Amino acid sequence: MAKSKFEYVRQFEQDDRCLPNCWLVVRVDGKAFHRFSDAHNFEKPNDKRALDLMSRCAERVMDEFKDICLSYGQSDEYSFVFRKDSLVYNRRASKLMTSVSSLFTSAYVFHWPEYFPDSMRYPPSFDGRVVLYPSDKNLVDYLSWRQADCHINNLYNTVFWSLVQSGGLSPKQAEERLRGTLSSDKNEILFQEFGINYNNLSPLYRKGTVIVREPVPDETAPAEGGKKSGKQKCTKLTSMNVDIIQKDFWNKYPFLLDDVS
Amino acid sequence: MAKSKFEYVRQFEQDDRCLPNCWLVVRVDGKAFHRFSDAHNFEKPNDKRALDLMSRCAERVMDEFKDICLSYGQSDEYSFVFRKDSLVYNRRASKLMTSVSSLFTSAYVFHWPEYFPDSMRYPPSFDGRVVLYPSDKNLVDYLSWRQADCHINNLYNTVFWSLVQSGGLSPKQAEERLRGTLSSDKNEILFQEFGINYNNLSPLYRKGTVIVREPVPDETAPAEGGKKSGKQKCTKLTSMNVDIIQKDFWNKYPFLLDDVS
Amino acid sequence: MAKSKFEYVRQFEQDDRCLPNCWLVVRVDGKAFHRFSDAHNFEKPNDKRALDLMSRCAERVMDEFKDICLSYGQSDEYSFVFRKDSLVYNRRASKLMTSVSSLFTSAYVFHWPEYFPDSMRYPPSFDGRVVLYPSDKNLVDYLSWRQADCHINNLYNTVFWSLVQSGGLSPKQAEERLRGTLSSDKNEILFQEFGINYNNLSPLYRKGTVIVREPVPDETAPAEGGKKSGKQKCTKLTSMNVDIIQKDFWNKYPFLLDDVS
Amino acid sequence: MAKSKFEYVRQFEQDDRCLPNCWLVVRVDGKAFHRFSDAHNFEKPNDKRALDLMSRCAERVMDEFKDICLSYGQSDEYSFVFRKDSLVYNRRASKLMTSVSSLFTSAYVFHWPEYFPDSMRYPPSFDGRVVLYPSDKNLVDYLSWRQADCHINNLYNTVFWSLVQSGGLSPKQAEERLRGTLSSDKNEILFQEFGINYNNLSPLYRKGTVIVREPVPDETAPAEGGKKSGKQKCTKLTSMNVDIIQKDFWNKYPFLLDDVS
Repeated sequence: MAKSKFEYVRQFEQDDRCLPNCWLVVRVDGKAFHRFSDAHNFEKPNDKRALDLMSRCAERVMDEFKDICLSYGQSDEYSFVFRKDSLVYNRRASKLMTSVSSLFTSAYVFHWPEYFPDSMRYPPSFDGRVVLYPSDKNLVDYLSWRQADCHINNLYNTVFWSLVQSGGLSPKQAEERLRGTLSSDKNEILFQEFGINYNNLSPLYRKGTVIVREPVPDETAPAEGGKKSGKQKCTKLTSMNVDIIQKDFWNKYPFLLDDVS
Repeated sequence: MAKSKFEYVRQFEQDDRCLPNCWLVVRVDGKAFHRFSDAHNFEKPNDKRALDLMSRCAERVMDEFKDICLSYGQSDEYSFVFRKDSLVYNRRASKLMTSVSSLFTSAYVFHWPEYFPDSMRYPPSFDGRVVLYPSDKNLVDYLSWRQADCHINNLYNTVFWSLVQSGGLSPKQAEERLRGTLSSDKNEILFQEFGINYNNLSPLYRKGTVIVREPVPDETAPAEGGKKSGKQKCTKLTSMNVDIIQKDFWNKYPFLLDDVS
Repeated sequence: MAKSKFEYVRQFEQDDRCLPNCWLVVRVDGKAFHRFSDAHNFEKPNDKRALDLMSRCAERVMDEFKDICLSYGQSDEYSFVFRKDSLVYNRRASKLMTSVSSLFTSAYVFHWPEYFPDSMRYPPSFDGRVVLYPSDKNLVDYLSWRQADCHINNLYNTVFWSLVQSGGLSPKQAEERLRGTLSSDKNEILFQEFGINYNNLSPLYRKGTVIVREPVPDETAPAEGGKKSGKQKCTKLTSMNVDIIQKDFWNKYPFLLDDVS
Repeated sequence: MAKSKFEYVRQFEQDDRCLPNCWLVVRVDGKAFHRFSDAHNFEKPNDKRALDLMSRCAERVMDEFKDICLSYGQSDEYSFVFRKDSLVYNRRASKLMTSVSSLFTSAYVFHWPEYFPDSMRYPPSFDGRVVLYPSDKNLVDYLSWRQADCHINNLYNTVFWSLVQSGGLSPKQAEERLRGTLSSDKNEILFQEFGINYNNLSPLYRKGTVIVREPVPDETAPAEGGKKSGKQKCTKLTSMNVDIIQKDFWNKYPFLLDDVS
């Protein structure tokens, strides 16, 4: 059987290597998660189990891809930041986004029983994309954009579900009530009508989750010429629910943006 | 919190719409499946359960994406053929390859217990890519390339594992024995030394699996002006282990290549 | 002087090879030719010298690039069709579009004095693009689109300039007079008010110019073992002002679309 | 004539906008300039007229594209650096590279008679490409790479042509004589055999030409609220034959890399 006469079809594959020296962000997004969360009775406005599962999957991905220095997640999305100088898969966009999306999804189904008592009813999926950011500022602005999105959606959802669950409004009525309101209006409704101080809610819901890869001080360095390779540095993952828009965060983890290019 | 001042980062996302009027093939490939199959004691040279699970996942994907007219799988890979005129996701390459890879993987973990008695030990992943083929001939040659690959690998693996499992050779010895042999040599070894007629082995192993979407004759069409929409045609998926390199297959399913462009 | 430490910058160049087995069209377009034609007193609505110069340049390009089988030009634009199987510059998009644009422009300035008595006042430029068309139908439709564009613009310009040059209207008045008119209206104005039968105007203006590369029957084959290489076939360029939207043209030159893929 | 039924072909054009916030370099290269320089009797190893003409063309390009802050040329090539924040042509790669290549070529033919007494014998062409550089360092390294290339080639050519023109060697003999020699060897040959101190040769040949766009101090600023628009700043082009690899150059023109992103 002549294999060779068909092999020309490989020429139709196109090179999609990403520009060097740019931050490489892969974001995965749940597909039709409105329906999925309904089918699995996620708690509204936030289901802690679902958010924890998301972060569990993100850690799996970061365990596999050591060039990811930071990830940020909220709702049904997670963003993974590969270092500017990463050469993983030769920076091929297809490989990067499909591998990350696939592994994230796989972990989601795999770890589901650790977070939810009931069986999963059907397999969910996450799409993915890869975006390049040339400068530190662009990257920080990207992450700020996602965290601002988290805030805006969570504030809306918190008021909306308060109106529905405690206020006796129908979803339609709640929607109308909130149309055109500002952030301050929503905070006021929460406080006046439901006695909720938004800022006291869990930062998991308000800020999302950032996972940082930190170098581990090498305490266990072998005393007498052990084999410890200098190449593979020890790192650990630290998960937090903090503000990443302000400079404080970046000042606290200066190695993240340690841009020497 | 000013969302708008960060939104400029969306401009860094690039348009990746695929050229119109080309066959659009998404292929998913198991990542490090050598290790995965060892860790889960897959039978050698072929594990029928694993292959059946792969095809189960392919059907899930075809259920979701109605524009896939055909898929072909072998070993730890599956190719999905979207119709030339498909507009799904506006033909955006990223969306297509990540959604298919993710859903395929999700189904793999989800359906695993239906095929394997033991628990999955860790979440597997599949990478994906999208390739365009402008002509029917290019597409058929692509699929022929994958089926020829199936044949070559399966013949090799069948002899290799016979030599190891029944012939008492070590993997290394089997590898050396096979170095430089032709197909005819391998067939001869199988027949003379192990009494195996390669052509009698299961076509599932020799040919892989092709799944075709067939139109269903609309028997249940309502007699007098029923609500049956003409838009969404009824189709069914038919799975086969047949030769797709020869013309016979394509003549039998002429609607697959019904190219009117 | 260390050259090597800088050479890494080559990695920032990206591969832009075009998909194989597609028609490859490079179109060049005059930049700011309104201003250029005014500055050089082009006759309105058409300047035969300018159109002839354009076609002279197109022939230069076709002399250089033997894989161009056909070109079509009108107004200040020209489209060059490379054969589906062309491997020129490895089908790299950048090389193709810049080389064609540059050579076309170069020829324009170079041959200018052969067509215009007055010196060129400043150097003009042409931008370029490359577009892929997978099927013969797509290619023919592309060319039909350009010829339909030629017709629409030329009919408009012919009436417009008749109203201005012979009808005594100001450009603004002419524009208002034509707003919302159909083709039939414009034909009627031309005929009733200026005694012009549009269809009798020069096909150079109405149809644009198509240049076909034709094989030359090899009459001059050397009798006694001459050096004539079989590889480089003799061809000649034939320029015409004919309809290329109807099938007649394509039936007359069947080798143009001789698509065996 | 139905225009609309053909217009779908526009969908085959692909978006090729360049990543924002990257330096955008367009480099044009003479095509087959070996032949062109022979046909026009360029002086060896350098023809000052040809180099001056190249820089004249570069200035034309910089006059047209105000977002080019710097260009660098040597031999038959010129690189144009667009500012990181340039939005010219929406950063579409095709438009950028073809427009620059075309205008450069146009100017070359147009201005030829100002530099060469004899007529041009045939129209030359320049190909072009666009490359993105994310950081200032990448950009400076790119330009250093081109200047190092200038140095290496010019040193080689200077010795080669000395051996041929003054040393009586054939081109082949000169080539063999130089095979494997280091820079120091070549300097030595020049000095010992031909009394030439390489460093005393014209910097035009040794360093190439850098053209910088400088802001012009606005002396003519109207005293009390004149109409002078703040938008379109006055600039002038300054051409130099200096080292751009060392930091001195960049320190002298700090506004070039004034990177605030």
